[in-house]
Order: sequence, then C-alpha cells, then structure tokens
Amino acid sequence: MKPDLVRREANHVALTPLDFIARSADVVPHKIAVVDGERRFTYAEFEDRAARLAGGLAARGLREGDVVSVLAPNGAEMLEAHFGVPLAGGVLNALNTRLDPAAIAAILGHARARFFILHAALFKLGAAALAAMEGPRPAVIVIGASEAERDAVGGEDHGDVLAKAARHPRRAPADEWDSIALNYTSGTTGRPKGALYSHRGAYLNALGNVVTFGLRPESVYLWTLPMFHCNGWTYPWAVTAIGARHVCLPAIDPARIFRLIEEEGVTHLCAAPVVLTMLIHAPEAAGLRLSRTVEVATGGAAPPSAVIEAMERMGFRLTHLYGMTECYGPSTSCFPQEEWSDLPLEDRARLMARQGVRNITLQMQDVIDRETGLPVPRDGATLGELVLRGNTVMKGYLDAPEETENALADGRLHTGDLAVIHPDGYIEIKDRSKDIIISGGENISSLEVEEALYRHPAVMEAAVVARPDPKWGESPCAFVTLKPDAEPLTEEDVIAFCRERLARFKCPRSVVFGPLPKTSTGKIQKYELRRLAAEL
Amino acid sequence: MKPDLVRREANHVALTPLDFIARSADVVPHKIAVVDGERRFTYAEFEDRAARLAGGLAARGLREGDVVSVLAPNGAEMLEAHFGVPLAGGVLNALNTRLDPAAIAAILGHARARFFILHAALFKLGAAALAAMEGPRPAVIVIGASEAERDAVGGEDHGDVLAKAARHPRRAPADEWDSIALNYTSGTTGRPKGALYSHRGAYLNALGNVVTFGLRPESVYLWTLPMFHCNGWTYPWAVTAIGARHVCLPAIDPARIFRLIEEEGVTHLCAAPVVLTMLIHAPEAAGLRLSRTVEVATGGAAPPSAVIEAMERMGFRLTHLYGMTECYGPSTSCFPQEEWSDLPLEDRARLMARQGVRNITLQMQDVIDRETGLPVPRDGATLGELVLRGNTVMKGYLDAPEETENALADGRLHTGDLAVIHPDGYIEIKDRSKDIIISGGENISSLEVEEALYRHPAVMEAAVVARPDPKWGESPCAFVTLKPDAEPLTEEDVIAFCRERLARFKCPRSVVFGPLPKTSTGKIQKYELRRLAAEL
Repeated sequence: MKPDLVRREANHVALTPLDFIARSADVVPHKIAVVDGERRFTYAEFEDRAARLAGGLAARGLREGDVVSVLAPNGAEMLEAHFGVPLAGGVLNALNTRLDPAAIAAILGHARARFFILHAALFKLGAAALAAMEGPRPAVIVIGASEAERDAVGGEDHGDVLAKAARHPRRAPADEWDSIALNYTSGTTGRPKGALYSHRGAYLNALGNVVTFGLRPESVYLWTLPMFHCNGWTYPWAVTAIGARHVCLPAIDPARIFRLIEEEGVTHLCAAPVVLTMLIHAPEAAGLRLSRTVEVATGGAAPPSAVIEAMERMGFRLTHLYGMTECYGPSTSCFPQEEWSDLPLEDRARLMARQGVRNITLQMQDVIDRETGLPVPRDGATLGELVLRGNTVMKGYLDAPEETENALADGRLHTGDLAVIHPDGYIEIKDRSKDIIISGGENISSLEVEEALYRHPAVMEAAVVARPDPKWGESPCAFVTLKPDAEPLTEEDVIAFCRERLARFKCPRSVVFGPLPKTSTGKIQKYELRRLAAEL
Repeated sequence: MKPDLVRREANHVALTPLDFIARSADVVPHKIAVVDGERRFTYAEFEDRAARLAGGLAARGLREGDVVSVLAPNGAEMLEAHFGVPLAGGVLNALNTRLDPAAIAAILGHARARFFILHAALFKLGAAALAAMEGPRPAVIVIGASEAERDAVGGEDHGDVLAKAARHPRRAPADEWDSIALNYTSGTTGRPKGALYSHRGAYLNALGNVVTFGLRPESVYLWTLPMFHCNGWTYPWAVTAIGARHVCLPAIDPARIFRLIEEEGVTHLCAAPVVLTMLIHAPEAAGLRLSRTVEVATGGAAPPSAVIEAMERMGFRLTHLYGMTECYGPSTSCFPQEEWSDLPLEDRARLMARQGVRNITLQMQDVIDRETGLPVPRDGATLGELVLRGNTVMKGYLDAPEETENALADGRLHTGDLAVIHPDGYIEIKDRSKDIIISGGENISSLEVEEALYRHPAVMEAAVVARPDPKWGESPCAFVTLKPDAEPLTEEDVIAFCRERLARFKCPRSVVFGPLPKTSTGKIQKYELRRLAAEL
C-alpha cells in the first residue's frame, strides 16, 4: 500500500452508534425523540441528557472500559444510558429486571461494575443486590428515589448528576472494536455469562435492523421489548440512527399498548410470542381493528399459527426473527417470499415458523453436523447445530476464556440450537440441544410435540421436557396452560389429541396443567420444568 | 485486550459489497434481479454470471489489485462487473462513455489496466483508445461484437469467456481497506485524477443509500444514472444489497423511461437535473400522471423550482443529494423536515435547493474558512469551503500523492466547493471556487445569477461564467438555452429581467443564446463557456 493511500483521519473513522445520536441531534434537533409517560424529549434534549450523563460519569472517575450497570424499566434514562455510558468510554451493562438480588449481586461482582444506576421502581431489588455483594461495591446513582432511599444505598440523585454535569464532548472510540455493552445471558442454561459487544458490531446490527425492519424517519417504535434484552435487540441505536421516535413502555400492559398504538401513531414494535399471546387474549382485543398496519417483529420462539392469525386480524403484520445474546439479538429473519402471500394461513404459518435467512449484516448462517463440522444436507430433515459468523457476533464472554473458545471455535458461533436447513435455504430450529428428549433411543423434538399441543383449541401455552423413565430412559412430559375460557381437559384428552398428530413414541406420557414458570425475559424455564417432571 | 476477546474469524469479517450479492442469491435466488432490454436474470443467474466473469479473469492471470477497465453502457455486463471484478481480486475502473479516445487511452495507461472490457455499442471509441495507447495494452474482452471487430482489437468474446469459465468461489477481501474501484474525475477541473474506493467504504455507502433513499426488497430501480458515474453512486451494490430489481437503460430516452416506469413498476431512480429537464420537456410528459409515486434522487446541481414543480405534478417525489467522485457519490441530502410540506412551492424549492445534511454513513460535514480552517458561522451568508470526513471518503488518488495530500489535508476532504451553512445546519453550495466571478472587487456567485435566469419562463437552461472585462476585471456572461416553444428573447430582455431580481453589479453584461456544452456526466462545461466568453 502506498503511504498516501493508507487509512487516515479524513477517510477512516470508527463505526459507532454514538454517531447516530449526534447526527439525529444535528438533523432533527426539534423532533420528539423519546416519549416516556408524560415526558417528551426532542433529539437535541435526548443528546444533551446523554452527554450530561457521560459528563457526570467522567467527572466521577469513570475510565475507559469501566462497566456501568443499569437496573431500570424501559424509559428515557435507560435509552440515554445506551449513548451516555459509551460516550464517557464506559461499557453499558443493562440488567435484567426480573432477576433476584443474588443474581444481580453476582453480575455486579463479575462485571466489576464501577457505577450502578438504579431506578426507584426497582429500588428494593437493587438495594438487596447491593447488600448481597461480597466484593467492592459500585458507586450508586438513583433515578427518582426519595432522599431516604438514596441515603440507604449511599447513592446520588440521577437528576442532580445530570443537572450539575458538563456536557461530555462528542467523541468516537479509539478503536471500533472497543466494547460498548456487556449482556449476561438469561440463565436458562446454567451460570450466567457476560457477552461483550463492540461499537462496530452494535453500529452494524443497528443499521441492519433499520434495513430489515424497514424503519423510516417517520416511524414510531413502541418499547414492548425490554431494553435489557440484548440491548433491546440494538433498537435503542437503530431507532435513533434513522431519527425515528421511541415510545417507552415500563411494563407489558395490553390496554396501554393498544392505547399508545393509536395515540402515538406506533408503526413498529418487537415482542416475544408470549406478549403477543397476552395481546390477543386481552379484553381490549375483542373486535379490535387498528387504524393502520403495525409491523411486529417477534422472536425467542416461533409464533404459532393461531397467534399469527389473531394478530393479522387486528391489523398487525408479523415477522419472525431469531437471535440470541451472543449475536446482538436478531441475526436471521423469516424473509417473506412474494408467493407466500397467496397461501392458506396454515401453510403460511408453517413457513413463517422457520427462523429463516441471515440478516443483511450477518455474513454466514449454516447448520452443521456436530461430529464432522460439515454442513448438513438441505433436506429439511437432517438435524445439526446452527452456527453463525459475522461482525454481529459477540467479542466473547467476559473473563471466561474457555466458554469463549467453545462458543467461537473453528470460526463460527455455536448457538447450541439444533436445526434443519430446508431446500430453500431457510433454517428451522427444532430444539435447543438440551431440549431433545431421548426415549428408547429415539430422538424426540420437544418443539414438535409442543407444536402439536398448540393446535388444541383449549391450549394457551405448552412446554414439553424429558421426564426420567425407568423403561425408556426418558419420556415426554407436557406442561399445559389452558385458555381462561377453556373447558376443563384431562391428561387422557391431551394424549389422545397428540396421538392423532404424532408418532406414538413422541406423545406425552404425562400432562401437567397450570401456569408455566418463565425466565425474566419471558422464556419458559425448561430447567425448572425438568426438575418438576423428575419429581412427579 | 484479553487474548480471548480479540478479533477472530467468527466475529470479524471484512465489510464488502461482495456479501450483498451472495446473500441475495441465497435469499431470493429466483427473483428477477436484472432487466436489460429483453434479457432478465434472476439473482442466482446474476451471481452466477458475476462468478464466471471472476473465474474467467482469474484464469487469464488477474492478480490481486489489478485494474479492470470497462467501457459499456448501463447494462447487465456492467452490473456484473461491479461484483465479478472485485470477486477475482481486481479493481473496477468504469469508464466514462462520453470521453474521447485520447482521454480513455490516458486513463487505461495511468491505471495500468490489465483487462479492458469493451461493449460493441462503444467499439469504435474503445478501439481508437487502444490504438492511441503508448504503453502496454490491456487484454481485451468484447461484449457482443463481431468476429472481425474482436480480431481487430485482439479481443475475446465476453459470452465465450463466461461460458467457458469456472465459477469463482465466494470470497471476501483479505482487508476491507483493499480497493474495489477506481473512478476518474470527469475533468471539469483539469487533468483527470483516479479516486480509489475501498470495500469498506463501498459497503457502507451502499447500505447508507438503502437507508437514505428508502430502498426495500420490493423496490424497482431504473438506471437513468450512468453506472460509470462514481459507480452509479454505489447503487449497483445498494440495490443488490436489499435484493431489489435493477432495470437497465443504455441511454437517456424520455419515452422509454416513461414506458419502463409503468411496465416494470419502477419505484426509484437517480438523475442529474438536466435529465429531469429532458423528461419535463418531452412530448410524452404532456398531461402525464404516473400511476404511483416514483422517488427521484437528483444531484450535481440544485433542481430549479420549476423542475421540482413539473416533476411533482407528474407524480415524482424529488430528493436533492450532493456528492462527488471523491466521496463515493452522494454524501449529503436535503432531508425534508416535516413542516416543509405545508410551504408554498417557491419557499420549498428554496429550501430543497440546499445540499443539506450529512447522510447516515458520513461522519462530518462542515464549512470552513479557507484561511483559518475554522468553521464559519451558521448564518447562511459567510462563504467557506465545504469539507467532509468519514468512511465514505476515498482512499486517495492513484499515483498522485501530492493531490491526495491536498485533498485529504488536516483530516478532512476538501471539496473545493464554496458553501454557506444555514442556522438549521443545512449547507448550501454557492459555487465551485473557480466559478466565483470577481467584478470590481465584488464576489459574484454564478449560481445566484443562474437561479435568477431560471426564473424566466422562457429559459430552459442557463450558465453564467466570468468574462474578462477591461474595466471591472471580470463581468458575468450568461449562456442561455430557451425552451423549444419559447418566444424569441433579446440580450436586453434577459438583462432587464435580472435587474429586477439582482443587485446591478451581479447582472450579466453579455448574454449568448444556444445549446450549452456538457461534460460526459451531463454537467455544463463551464471551462468551455469561459473560453467562449473570453473570445466574445
């Protein structure tokens, strides 16, 4: 390379989401950026508050690479932290609000959090976590709490910090590979691990989301997805990048969601299928028809056909995404082919239940044989492990070199999800590896059994796990929640229903009725169900 | 950085537009990607043909970094070259089809082109350029020419090359900073210079264009803009990235453009204002109303209000962009603020005539005092030089270290365009530095005089340059093309019209009627007008 053609300041700058808020504050300074209850902030105010948070943190000694943990519901302060923390050179650790104090204490300790921003709505949880900590404690900044509460944790008031702080000047990280966020996996799979995201990856994933989800400057994004969940799938950065509007929602409340959609002109939202189920079964949903189409991205589990149908009837349009903490949230989506729109709902739902194809910013997805590491045939039948590669794969786990090595071995992120690849190149996840039930030497996909259960008109939610079986090794055990207005159902009814749809060996041998335990991100806690099944 | 958290194959891949065609071929293989006259290629075929071109070039000895020059009208082969050449490791040099043989020979020599792909429609021009070359000649591949023509230049048939070639495997560049394209400036400003683009810059500018122009998978893009012009403003990569459809157009032909818009369902096109003027004045435009809104991005010169009005009446929606060869084409756009839509046309046109704000992938735009290098006040009046910074600024000029240094000095691309910055942060170009007329010590913006001339109902095109003046040093000289149906107009009429609108010293002192000389990219050749003015 000739010396005059090397990277230089004029033509090579770090990719960073910090640029998104700077640009939107320049281009649409007076536009409302954030709606949070009665509060409304313009883009100029949004950037100003983020810059003051950064200035406040810097003044309190934050150094490059320090972790700032935040425990707060979806709201303006959490959005601001997505920009203010990295602006000061810090790494944002958005905490799952549904964890218990011990788990939060463990994360604060493992992350060596230098600051802890705690919202009054979660004060008890945060205070208990601080009390449970063993090592050094972070400096505490409390949002909206009373003086007594602040004193109890030795915390400063967030509003005071902002009011007294100087605006941190705009900056880019020295290297786009620098960390911007630290996200702990939700813990369905053993001890939590902290996945590190880079500025580069966050920038690209956010821009990819703008393209994949079709965000435009006039879009209005409703925060049904928790911002602590893979940084809200990177939408705090994506919505800001395009200069659209954030509408915050501190908790899932169907009546409020329907009201905000109409009052604020919501055009886009993301939500797990369990939230869609809540929307469908809310009293307000009866006969509802939205005044305009609302785009909904859903992931974490495939949306059942009944959910697709009910959502579409109200005026929502669903896209099924797939992702995980290790890849900045969404990485694949079930891109709808033109010809699908003519298909009957059942066929369309079957196609849409697939996790689909790689998003524009992911470089590679494939399904590999776990023994040989080679791609499985594209036959829609051969099970293998889903692997991903690209700039939107995490840097690795914090202080866990062995787990990092396992996850990123041989140039691919090993998702641990078992999938098939269809002839059209769409992947479909059949199970988490640990969710395979092995009964009499035969593999049974718990997802396949669940899909059969979901077809029963009385079933609202279902989960299937392995139950130890003296004869078969394991047998499928079903946990079922019935719809509020459903007629009573017996174990035999359920098993008979499955036998009409599944091979006999795949049918549940035991059925338990009642509410399902969920993780903090709304995923069904299969390990808890496994424990219950073992005790039956 | 801990060793387990460094960049590695799983989480750090080169940004490259090569990924766009691979993904679209995976996701929408059977969708029509390219329409070129009677030919239609699916994305699978598009990728296959590009991969065969790459295979053919590699088999003929192309090495990493070799330049492949292409002289061809907008068509499938030129699009394929945008992927096939870099896939083989080459650097694409798309040649301006309106240059003369000597200029093309000079570029082929300067670029040390290893291959020269020549379309039969431009055979004479290409053959003459080869004959005019002094140094070693490139290997020649001819598209659609006769055997006799091929023999005359010692060329191989493009179709044969593809038919016999093996598909080049998918690959990414070793480094995203590697060059993907070499574009020579169009030569209004002295000797041509070759601006080098990187894979990284091309990837980002293309993705930025998808976002800025709102391209969607269902979009249909009409190729009114030459693909040799800054690689068609990077739209060969952008349209492919989103998996939309390219509709080729070998030459500007208003009747064909209107027909293709309706027949192919065109949704987006880019064009210089001169093309828009042609559309407006075409016989087919009379009373035309498109069956759907077509988005038009225009740049190179500000669209006059009459053009905006006439285009909108037909159903086009205009966005004004700004860019140059040195920054991958479009870098800023006149983002329309919500409140503008309520303004009267004249006010809106005045706002839209501004070059606007930085695009999402540009990091910085500013207007600086040429003496101090400091930003000028945001007063809409103080003239300075427009400077840019970001990943979408060229690597530099090929074999021109001094020009590179001048262009990229002090961490900014110096555009040479004189601009003001308005209180709302929108930049407005007042002139190329050399287009300022200095008369009696007063600076006169030729653009300001032109804008006045364009308001005359009989004027179709106008350009103003400095004419040497014994008393004042220079005086403004106007060149005017009247509308085909306009009443005759005298020099005095024009000057009197200007005096009602401009300070007396700014008004033209001489007016010449007739067609205006244009550069190959449709820009008015001001240096030619200056020569004519000097000879008056």
